[in-house]
Amino acid sequence: MKLTKEQQEEIKLQQSQENFTKRVTVKDLENLLYEAIPVLDHGFIRVIDYMGDDTSIVQAARVSYGKGTKKVSTDSGLIKYLMRHWHSTPFEMCEIKYHIKLPIFIARQWIRHRTANVNEYSARYSILDKEFYLPSEANLAAQSVNNRQGRGEVLSGDQAQKVLKLLKDDAERTYDNYESMLNQRYDGSTIDNNKPGLARELARMNLTLNTYTQWYWKTDLLNLMNFLRLRVDHHAQYEIRSYAEIMLDTLKKWVPITYDAFIDYRVGGTEVSAKGKSVINNIIKGKDINMEDSGLSKREWNELMSAFDLTEKIIE
Amino acid sequence: MKLTKEQQEEIKLQQSQENFTKRVTVKDLENLLYEAIPVLDHGFIRVIDYMGDDTSIVQAARVSYGKGTKKVSTDSGLIKYLMRHWHSTPFEMCEIKYHIKLPIFIARQWIRHRTANVNEYSARYSILDKEFYLPSEANLAAQSVNNRQGRGEVLSGDQAQKVLKLLKDDAERTYDNYESMLNQRYDGSTIDNNKPGLARELARMNLTLNTYTQWYWKTDLLNLMNFLRLRVDHHAQYEIRSYAEIMLDTLKKWVPITYDAFIDYRVGGTEVSAKGKSVINNIIKGKDINMEDSGLSKREWNELMSAFDLTEKIIE
Amino acid sequence: MKLTKEQQEEIKLQQSQENFTKRVTVKDLENLLYEAIPVLDHGFIRVIDYMGDDTSIVQAARVSYGKGTKKVSTDSGLIKYLMRHWHSTPFEMCEIKYHIKLPIFIARQWIRHRTANVNEYSARYSILDKEFYLPSEANLAAQSVNNRQGRGEVLSGDQAQKVLKLLKDDAERTYDNYESMLNQRYDGSTIDNNKPGLARELARMNLTLNTYTQWYWKTDLLNLMNFLRLRVDHHAQYEIRSYAEIMLDTLKKWVPITYDAFIDYRVGGTEVSAKGKSVINNIIKGKDINMEDSGLSKREWNELMSAFDLTEKIIE
Amino acid sequence: MKLTKEQQEEIKLQQSQENFTKRVTVKDLENLLYEAIPVLDHGFIRVIDYMGDDTSIVQAARVSYGKGTKKVSTDSGLIKYLMRHWHSTPFEMCEIKYHIKLPIFIARQWIRHRTANVNEYSARYSILDKEFYLPSEANLAAQSVNNRQGRGEVLSGDQAQKVLKLLKDDAERTYDNYESMLNQRYDGSTIDNNKPGLARELARMNLTLNTYTQWYWKTDLLNLMNFLRLRVDHHAQYEIRSYAEIMLDTLKKWVPITYDAFIDYRVGGTEVSAKGKSVINNIIKGKDINMEDSGLSKREWNELMSAFDLTEKIIE
Repeated sequence: MKLTKEQQEEIKLQQSQENFTKRVTVKDLENLLYEAIPVLDHGFIRVIDYMGDDTSIVQAARVSYGKGTKKVSTDSGLIKYLMRHWHSTPFEMCEIKYHIKLPIFIARQWIRHRTANVNEYSARYSILDKEFYLPSEANLAAQSVNNRQGRGEVLSGDQAQKVLKLLKDDAERTYDNYESMLNQRYDGSTIDNNKPGLARELARMNLTLNTYTQWYWKTDLLNLMNFLRLRVDHHAQYEIRSYAEIMLDTLKKWVPITYDAFIDYRVGGTEVSAKGKSVINNIIKGKDINMEDSGLSKREWNELMSAFDLTEKIIE
Repeated sequence: MKLTKEQQEEIKLQQSQENFTKRVTVKDLENLLYEAIPVLDHGFIRVIDYMGDDTSIVQAARVSYGKGTKKVSTDSGLIKYLMRHWHSTPFEMCEIKYHIKLPIFIARQWIRHRTANVNEYSARYSILDKEFYLPSEANLAAQSVNNRQGRGEVLSGDQAQKVLKLLKDDAERTYDNYESMLNQRYDGSTIDNNKPGLARELARMNLTLNTYTQWYWKTDLLNLMNFLRLRVDHHAQYEIRSYAEIMLDTLKKWVPITYDAFIDYRVGGTEVSAKGKSVINNIIKGKDINMEDSGLSKREWNELMSAFDLTEKIIE
Repeated sequence: MKLTKEQQEEIKLQQSQENFTKRVTVKDLENLLYEAIPVLDHGFIRVIDYMGDDTSIVQAARVSYGKGTKKVSTDSGLIKYLMRHWHSTPFEMCEIKYHIKLPIFIARQWIRHRTANVNEYSARYSILDKEFYLPSEANLAAQSVNNRQGRGEVLSGDQAQKVLKLLKDDAERTYDNYESMLNQRYDGSTIDNNKPGLARELARMNLTLNTYTQWYWKTDLLNLMNFLRLRVDHHAQYEIRSYAEIMLDTLKKWVPITYDAFIDYRVGGTEVSAKGKSVINNIIKGKDINMEDSGLSKREWNELMSAFDLTEKIIE
Repeated sequence: MKLTKEQQEEIKLQQSQENFTKRVTVKDLENLLYEAIPVLDHGFIRVIDYMGDDTSIVQAARVSYGKGTKKVSTDSGLIKYLMRHWHSTPFEMCEIKYHIKLPIFIARQWIRHRTANVNEYSARYSILDKEFYLPSEANLAAQSVNNRQGRGEVLSGDQAQKVLKLLKDDAERTYDNYESMLNQRYDGSTIDNNKPGLARELARMNLTLNTYTQWYWKTDLLNLMNFLRLRVDHHAQYEIRSYAEIMLDTLKKWVPITYDAFIDYRVGGTEVSAKGKSVINNIIKGKDINMEDSGLSKREWNELMSAFDLTEKIIE
């Protein structure tokens, strides 16, 4: 990640602010505010603003449940209770805003989380930077056989180099032709004063999907956790997971109690179907179990065994 | 509005906070933070938290439109442009949270604005306070003849007194019976130790719709303005308008530039249909106009004339 | 439930329609269309319209996953897979619309499900019917000691009668006074021609929360299941559960394959936290377990044991 | 637009359905159902399903406003009233589902309309077709000077040909390299059995933004109109406008009364700010007006004059 001088100065200026406020503040997150945390080769995540902290969740829950919540004596106990029982609205009382730079093909996955506010850099109005994502060699992997969407067998040195070269060359060539069609360079300067340029809204269609874009992305804590639960999962594509992992760290700094409950109940937890419960129950009671009688498919069976870390030995 | 000693102390405590932050702050809104602003006879509105200010809208818009927005030289010019052209997403970058006490029949109107986060005091878990809304005499008015939902002819002194007495007596009696069914008083104390009480979730059904409830209500600036546009309008019911007007004032303190644009384009503006435009155009050109040829209904015709402040004289 | 003659005729008329369509249709749901299914003492649920069936989910999923989904050979297998992995968007491709009559205090819970389209009968414009909910004697129960929101100890005969009488008398008196303030009867006829009436938008505040209202409620299949999962649960209030159970039956008729998966994974399933998984794993491995070392609270511990139907014996 | 034989047969099969239903049906839309209407060079729009018609809006409104709506004697009058006063919920009672094939850079604009249900073809799971959008020569235009996002001066013959060639060559080359990296052709066949391929989720990043994708897109009538109002506007990009115009035609076939009101109040209507109203009022009263005193910016002034079709002559 390389920031322009202009960007570096803006960040410094933002970080030098020192305002008084009667609102709740979170010191660990304040320390991180505006900082550009690198992701992938040219991307970044910046926390731009936030509203509320762990106590805001408790405050809202106590309004809902009134004197009834006094029985749960600690904030931590209450937050765990809310998380466990999927109470959603108190977590919506906190809000966070990020500034994110990311490749377009990742932005297209991301935007499917609808409950968020977004302002994206528009290539209808402005010229996109000449920056595109190239995976590291370690991440270039062949699509695995069992999982059509994952990566298994890593591409060998020569083949990896060939792929990287193709990606790089195509991105550069299409970008150069983008400038040429615009008759403008990335900095807005005209190439040939005697020629008209193509409209930006059209020229952009020549760019490849690994071109970087950027946006402001604002969401509440509940929907942030919904996003993270899906995107830190090992089924998520490596590139979006890279962003999610950094955001998970900002979650920890922002609302540490909620973070703990989130890890215990969501990230580390599992769901068990009615049929799955019956299998587990039979194992405990020492009954014979087998996939055929369980009503589970092979895939479900494997997921269940894996969730409870059951090796063949134990279940036989 | 009467706050309990406990509430007064909590507000004082919240207002005594003095935290440092690198986030943007708004001094005029900080001064108002946590304060309970009275509405109706027992209601209040408190601003509990906020995120962003006028510059946050500009910041987000400039990311969207990039170098393109530099042509609009001032923040104020840009915000007016965004408002005029119904650009929505930059206004979603600001967020505000209120604590509101309001009668249940108003809460039922309010909740129909779905794009907001809400935690309401729950009468399943807790006992509602013995507080109910009674209109002032000036506001007790007969339903007008032309507008089924409005109020026209004011009820006369005796009749008004009779209505107020009915409302008061019924609210008190149903509340007393609520306590009696619960076998508990409003403060949670048991009435008769030898009797079981009815579940709170059931007993509450005996309360009248003017009983006060309270909630935390959080929304973004765009949806706040959508709410205010509908609810400060003179067609809105007086009681919800009373809340909206106070919120309009918090809007002014929070984002003064946006407020000005909102008043000019939304609150003070009007919409004109294709047919309406044709009528206005004919008036200007000095052509004869009349309702029959215009294609407008009587109601539309009147709305158009009233929007442009056209008396009979001018249009004849 | 008593339908007016007018309502009965309207239903008969709607049911007599016989239109051709190229859209997918569901015979079992068609048979039920427009029928008023009774709920509680005066409420009802009617299915008014629907879009799509089980195959619509499969159709949408196959567009998303393209040739990749061909590996899941059956519709049923694919729907189960989607349900298990919380794939949400294919289930949003089906839509259903209900007409529902329900007490106001239940409507207030219901409306908190925001992702739905609603048109409610408005007491600003029209006079509400003289119908209010009175629980059956069997359902009048004292609030249980362990669960502030539930009902445990059933009120005894005399006390139950007393409560029912209070509820009935208060509802009737407040309704009579509502008419008196309006100076109109429920059918719109004027009571005293020489007196003005109070505006409907104000008079309604005198009604109790068990007064019946009605609405059209339309949602997609995903959000319907989110609603049902919470509302058929035994923690849900009996009154809303009564509605949810009937809607669950319409779900079964509409999308039988989805219904089966929903029952297995959602209604009958459970979630287990990271700590809970460790406890289960230890039980299976024959290790000693106890609450203190597990990191689970008493409540969590009990919930876990109950989810897997583990009696004391087994775990000791 | 070229459909595969498989697609043509599927459409024929869908159109041959003839089911009975008690639901409301719309003959003009039934006739169009499943048909692939061509858009741009390879895109299409298909209406896949719908719920409700004009009478469904009226039905829902009459539940809301009860006996109050009887005063508006006709369905058409009521729908016009609802549209004029921005009543939103009755229009949400109708739903429509489209199958759409469109270039990725247009899909990225489109998806910003969040209140819709979407299932998009996933390039994580499947190989995208070798189809990309190339503008017609007439649409290749230089970005205009006054409007950074529009197109003004049309590119001349030679320059247009050069641009088209660049677009075509780059799209083809990047697609060929996409196949090469995958080690698979568009039909899933392996190129070289002795080489591993790159994961699909990675290879897709080499495609250009004019590659076609497809999705199922479902929304309610209110949000469809919100989409159309913005996207049939002449400020909208030509490519998305091409889709919107065809959808506008499906709107007309589906809900003709609503369509008329939509054209009159939204598409053909205009908004006037408080300051703008004052200018119009002064013109009518024969007062002198000028931009400086009006408080309007040059742009606003021009927009106002243009909205009311006022030439210089009239206003001088």
